[in-house]
Amino acid sequence: MRIDGVHHRSIAPTDDGEAVRIIDQTRLPHALVFGRLETLEESADAIASMRVRGAPLIGATAAYGLWLGLRADPSDGGLGSAYERLLATRPTAVNLRWALDAVRDVVSKVAPERRSETAFAEAGRICDEDVAMNRAIGEHGLALIRTAFEAAGGRRPVNILTHCNAGWLATVDFGTALAPIYLAHDAGIPIHVWVDETRPRNQGALTALELRWHGVPHTVVVDNAGGHLMQRGEVDLCIVGTDRTTAEGDVCNKIGTYLKAVAARDCGVPFYVALPHPTLDWSVADGREIPIEDRGPGEVVRVVGAEGSVGLYPEGTVASNPAFDVTPARLVTALITDRGVCSASRDGLLTLFPERGETAA
Amino acid sequence: MRIDGVHHRSIAPTDDGEAVRIIDQTRLPHALVFGRLETLEESADAIASMRVRGAPLIGATAAYGLWLGLRADPSDGGLGSAYERLLATRPTAVNLRWALDAVRDVVSKVAPERRSETAFAEAGRICDEDVAMNRAIGEHGLALIRTAFEAAGGRRPVNILTHCNAGWLATVDFGTALAPIYLAHDAGIPIHVWVDETRPRNQGALTALELRWHGVPHTVVVDNAGGHLMQRGEVDLCIVGTDRTTAEGDVCNKIGTYLKAVAARDCGVPFYVALPHPTLDWSVADGREIPIEDRGPGEVVRVVGAEGSVGLYPEGTVASNPAFDVTPARLVTALITDRGVCSASRDGLLTLFPERGETAA
Repeated sequence: MRIDGVHHRSIAPTDDGEAVRIIDQTRLPHALVFGRLETLEESADAIASMRVRGAPLIGATAAYGLWLGLRADPSDGGLGSAYERLLATRPTAVNLRWALDAVRDVVSKVAPERRSETAFAEAGRICDEDVAMNRAIGEHGLALIRTAFEAAGGRRPVNILTHCNAGWLATVDFGTALAPIYLAHDAGIPIHVWVDETRPRNQGALTALELRWHGVPHTVVVDNAGGHLMQRGEVDLCIVGTDRTTAEGDVCNKIGTYLKAVAARDCGVPFYVALPHPTLDWSVADGREIPIEDRGPGEVVRVVGAEGSVGLYPEGTVASNPAFDVTPARLVTALITDRGVCSASRDGLLTLFPERGETAA
Repeated sequence: MRIDGVHHRSIAPTDDGEAVRIIDQTRLPHALVFGRLETLEESADAIASMRVRGAPLIGATAAYGLWLGLRADPSDGGLGSAYERLLATRPTAVNLRWALDAVRDVVSKVAPERRSETAFAEAGRICDEDVAMNRAIGEHGLALIRTAFEAAGGRRPVNILTHCNAGWLATVDFGTALAPIYLAHDAGIPIHVWVDETRPRNQGALTALELRWHGVPHTVVVDNAGGHLMQRGEVDLCIVGTDRTTAEGDVCNKIGTYLKAVAARDCGVPFYVALPHPTLDWSVADGREIPIEDRGPGEVVRVVGAEGSVGLYPEGTVASNPAFDVTPARLVTALITDRGVCSASRDGLLTLFPERGETAA
């Protein structure tokens, strides 16, 4: 995507080929600061500290992290410990394990002296694949938005609510939930996006920033407001991303997603979830089995803004900070995947991923 | 209630009888600062700026505001303009109009030279009545909490989720939603309260402060977390306040209440609303007719903390800030009023307020 006319990916090798360039997302939306990852440890820290975040981008960063780890120690032991170090950074997004497995599978088959370059190539392939998948998600979601536009008579913008940031900053490029919005905007369909603030880390600011860069009209609201907007008919559809979706269509995503989904059902508003297929965890059926990261009270009791951070509570206030929740499949209107749109169910997913049915049989 | 062992009401005449003492709630929880209202205009400004807030406390402040207005101009014209000035401060809470009507009805029957002292006495009566009603709400709600404690086997704390602040800071004393919690705690029933942050103004910090002063265990969570907690069985019941409840039991309350109510229904968690009878608006049946205050984008795009305020978004970001929403009666398990507990319906309310049925007939 473009920032002030210049195309960027959220992650890429540096021009000298010696490191990885990221955008430090803890500095956004107030400052655009690029970071440079030169080691395994720097990569792991970037994920854990959320300088990079978003399930697909975490996967891509981990893939490059394995490259940096293997550059320092290409032995079987080095591969194993780098894999474990990166896997331990965050527990919920399944793309992390998916990307690590993809790189490990390829590099473990080659001799140690070729492992570094092999991992580098595989990480690049993962990034390119992410972009292609997101574009496909965008095309499939565009059709849904076009239908909503026509259903509303084609005379007013389509109002879309999104939660957290599932845009290009959460992926390598293009985004998942925002990809259909970008394509619809580019296709001339008038769009207005309700941007959930997304406490405690306010990733809604990233979404608002992306939409501003792309010229898509939008309005920021606190997380409390979405239900009221749906009740008043001011939301035509919701689109969110996901950190892990189960084989039966349960959707794990940023904390608060469930509240929007249950309100959408109550109000008759379609609730869509956009995901590339590496976000599917075929090993889990019931979303309640997904580990939910607890990020500690600090993000709740202090808030970071342009001028620094401020404390919201007196010293000693106890706070809890579960980072994700699970929206049961029954509340999801449809999944928008890179292979097409399907119901949030095992049967629905198998229409798009028939090879998974064969594996299980 | 007590702060460091000293009993306070949230509003009271000053010792010299010349003014009204308030707690400046815009400075809480970081500083305990008392304010002094000496004029009608200062009273109106205290309500509009939310130095005092909460439906019952707004009513009490408006009653004293009429006193201060009549002290300067006790004529019919002075009474009328003071009434209108105070009524225009905030649109949603019905207690404002109720208190203004109560004072006006009394003072309009006496000669101008006696109006000021009459208004002062009536404002005091309104405050005393508020405290008595809240104590009654507490007793009725205590029975519900005791039942929940026993239903859980009596071996662990009752987990109660509340939204916004409906404690003694929102009333003259005691609170509405928090009154049952205080009485249950004092009765030796172990309680743990999940405190919703309540963006954009973070009134959850007021609730946390009250609970700390009273020694009730509690945990602050962002507004996004409550649904997840309910899904995981970590909420036994919800209790919230209300700014206006209709004759058919629709509940207008702080923005985000509806999201918690619809999640509670989905999870099988009881959802109670505590209210003194002046919060009932018998003139409205459908909650969608209640005017919803729009407080402007400033509260959304900047956040105030102990060290000052910080900006969350780049200059020019568009934000919307509806301050209340309406929870339909069908999602409310019961209303806890000063006269007892009833279903959220016209029939339920008429069992407690039969005189309203006679009026309509």
